[in-house]
Amino acid sequence: MRTPGIGPVTYRQLIARFGTSAAALAAVPDLARRGGGKAPPLRSRDDAEREIARVEKLGAKWLALGQGLYPRLLAELEDAPPLLIAKGDLNLLDRQSVAIVGARNASAAACRFARGLAHDLGQHDLIVISGLARGVDSAAHDGALGTGTIGVIAGGIDVFYPPENEERQKALCERGLVLAEMPPGTEPRARHFPYRNRIIAGMSSGTVVVEAAPRSGSLITARLAAEAGREVMAVPGSPLDPRAQGCNQLIRDGATLVQNAADVVEAIRPFASQVRSPRAPFEPILEQLNGHDALATVEELLGPSPVPVDEIIRLSGAPSGAVQLALLELDLAGRLERHAGGKVSLRE
Amino acid sequence: MRTPGIGPVTYRQLIARFGTSAAALAAVPDLARRGGGKAPPLRSRDDAEREIARVEKLGAKWLALGQGLYPRLLAELEDAPPLLIAKGDLNLLDRQSVAIVGARNASAAACRFARGLAHDLGQHDLIVISGLARGVDSAAHDGALGTGTIGVIAGGIDVFYPPENEERQKALCERGLVLAEMPPGTEPRARHFPYRNRIIAGMSSGTVVVEAAPRSGSLITARLAAEAGREVMAVPGSPLDPRAQGCNQLIRDGATLVQNAADVVEAIRPFASQVRSPRAPFEPILEQLNGHDALATVEELLGPSPVPVDEIIRLSGAPSGAVQLALLELDLAGRLERHAGGKVSLRE
Repeated sequence: MRTPGIGPVTYRQLIARFGTSAAALAAVPDLARRGGGKAPPLRSRDDAEREIARVEKLGAKWLALGQGLYPRLLAELEDAPPLLIAKGDLNLLDRQSVAIVGARNASAAACRFARGLAHDLGQHDLIVISGLARGVDSAAHDGALGTGTIGVIAGGIDVFYPPENEERQKALCERGLVLAEMPPGTEPRARHFPYRNRIIAGMSSGTVVVEAAPRSGSLITARLAAEAGREVMAVPGSPLDPRAQGCNQLIRDGATLVQNAADVVEAIRPFASQVRSPRAPFEPILEQLNGHDALATVEELLGPSPVPVDEIIRLSGAPSGAVQLALLELDLAGRLERHAGGKVSLRE
Repeated sequence: MRTPGIGPVTYRQLIARFGTSAAALAAVPDLARRGGGKAPPLRSRDDAEREIARVEKLGAKWLALGQGLYPRLLAELEDAPPLLIAKGDLNLLDRQSVAIVGARNASAAACRFARGLAHDLGQHDLIVISGLARGVDSAAHDGALGTGTIGVIAGGIDVFYPPENEERQKALCERGLVLAEMPPGTEPRARHFPYRNRIIAGMSSGTVVVEAAPRSGSLITARLAAEAGREVMAVPGSPLDPRAQGCNQLIRDGATLVQNAADVVEAIRPFASQVRSPRAPFEPILEQLNGHDALATVEELLGPSPVPVDEIIRLSGAPSGAVQLALLELDLAGRLERHAGGKVSLRE
């Protein structure tokens, strides 16, 4: 997972094909060479043990996809993080949860609303998930601190961002839960925030957007929630208030208008049973390839425009396992790009 | 029409059955007696001629259901007013229109929004209809005064209510159009406002609610618009603002969220072709009754709870024309109550 160039989807493919991480690691150099590139620089066992020791020293725990307390709803994402680092009350993980997200520069009224909504959702036994950012996120965590709240951060578990949220993050480690995908010590960068947002949306039965400008990160979270088949909810505002436009547009596009906790509870009721439904996260690839080598065919079918993997399989005429293997080889060679919605393209 | 106890539905039934108002008037006393009551006090020809003269003197015109400029969409209502008194620019009557309604005690922001929306709808060649009340109504008329606006009032055409709107009503008589269902000189009473609201909703391709408390008159207009099959639109607001709750609830119940004129234009586009579609407002009852008398049966089927006329017809086993005649007799005898949705009950 810490190898550059191996993302969550590639990781999942490798484990599905080779069964264990040891076998996958052993296979990577060969796969990459066949894909026409050089092998990515693998992290050593020492690197991994150092990180494990560091996480332990920080008082944090590991959550592994497909095991133990790993959130069931999150495991449904194609690009679910294989590992999460968690600090705080792990009991919060198997309860139904709702994400509350919104603008960092939200109005005082919106923050007050988010805090009240989070508090009221807590009274309905719901866990409130947010991103420990300024504004709406902070207000949501504060409102649910007494009943259960999970902060998902873009950087490492021991990094406080924004700095003024240090106390809040520490409070969540004590009385709530903080989750990080990146290794300890990671300073969050712009590209980390969409990864963080997929975890927020993926863990939650639904996402409530409180105040959001058009094209803001909160709308990305809402889109990710919709793509994951979860409930998207938005709090309306006056059309005269530019900060309400993102939410109003979401409602026009089909999001559920919510005015209070009762509206949210009603909207996410259908998801209640899914929170604890078991599911095999790594479906092993059992198909026999019989020496079928699809690499040349797949490479020819790919170009710079993203196409669905299903279409490559169909056009290639090869068994889907063979196509997946060819894609894995190109991927590990650094020549494949994976896009949202299961699409792939060849890197220029 | 000016006879107490003869409402728009009864009027329509009488004309459909007897062809002309003269024949209907001649039949009323007998029908009422058969229904088990005494005949309503009919207005004299002199009364009618006095009112006609008064309307003419006020510089107003008559619009008669099924004739000339009478608004096509309004004629579709089961309880369309048989007569309207109109003062102003009659050319506005055959153009597509949108109603803008809302709270009398609306916020300054809502009034500003209503004025801007009305102005922008005017730029799209739409006529803006409202009720010449305080607040949102007044703002909507002001915004559309240059492009075309119709005020529907609850009292007589020469009565100014609220008094501070006298100048505005006069301006609409000059540059827009004012419509009244009640005879000149009528001071508006509480019961007149829902009648006024059905005209606003009935003339319009859609109704936009700008700011409305739960259970307010604006929501009645929205319900009437929905019942007439027209587009219901609402402008959202913060859940923290009590004046936004009616609109937000409308949106939750399926109204289209609108933020600007473009949203409204898009929503009402399907109605554009209906504005000028001709339709026979009085479908004559051609059915031969062959002496079938359903009065006793119909009376037995009726009770104090409203039931659909269709159900009475089905249960009675009588021809629908015979049932309608029986209902008309009970109605003119003052023993029938007509309810929304074509339901009827017997008065206690």
